[in-house]
Amino acid sequence: MRRDVFQAIADPIRRDIIGLLAQHPLTVNAVAEQFNISRPSISKHLKILQECGIIVMNKQGRERYCHIQPNKLVPAFLWLEQYQQLWEDKLESFENYLEILKNKKNE
Amino acid sequence: MRRDVFQAIADPIRRDIIGLLAQHPLTVNAVAEQFNISRPSISKHLKILQECGIIVMNKQGRERYCHIQPNKLVPAFLWLEQYQQLWEDKLESFENYLEILKNKKNE
Repeated sequence: MRRDVFQAIADPIRRDIIGLLAQHPLTVNAVAEQFNISRPSISKHLKILQECGIIVMNKQGRERYCHIQPNKLVPAFLWLEQYQQLWEDKLESFENYLEILKNKKNE
Repeated sequence: MRRDVFQAIADPIRRDIIGLLAQHPLTVNAVAEQFNISRPSISKHLKILQECGIIVMNKQGRERYCHIQPNKLVPAFLWLEQYQQLWEDKLESFENYLEILKNKKNE
């Protein structure tokens, strides 16, 4: 399996973990408590997020804290952003089409 | 496997196919010709993209054309966009830190 931002965000649990950590760093236990899935599953997702560079682990005392690295999301954002014009154009042409229909109805 | 935009863009070949079709619709053969991988592999990727709603197939004569549905990329864009402030803040604090270092050096 590739380890990049696109793989990191492909899974809904991993997206939810990112959402949690975007608020503030959390211990592995605190992350696990938020999900109704097995602890090994959560550990696996955290490991993948680490390997993708999206989170880093910092040891503080006896606890390991997961910190998000938001800049690692940027390549996926930029990849999608290049198509923004495309969906905006399509939306605009759909709106124009609705306008034409509306005008025809009012004629 | 889930069938959503995040799965669609998780694979680099599928992202390249999206990039191709963003320029103009292409036949299945024309898409396959652009890649150095087996035809069944390409068909599988096109099927996944279809199931994710990112492309639709239109029959014109004997040919099947793949058309991109750019609006289907929007949910992934919006998901990433919500973290834009987070990476911009981080970048800004990094720039501030560099500025402080520079000023210290010049003192």
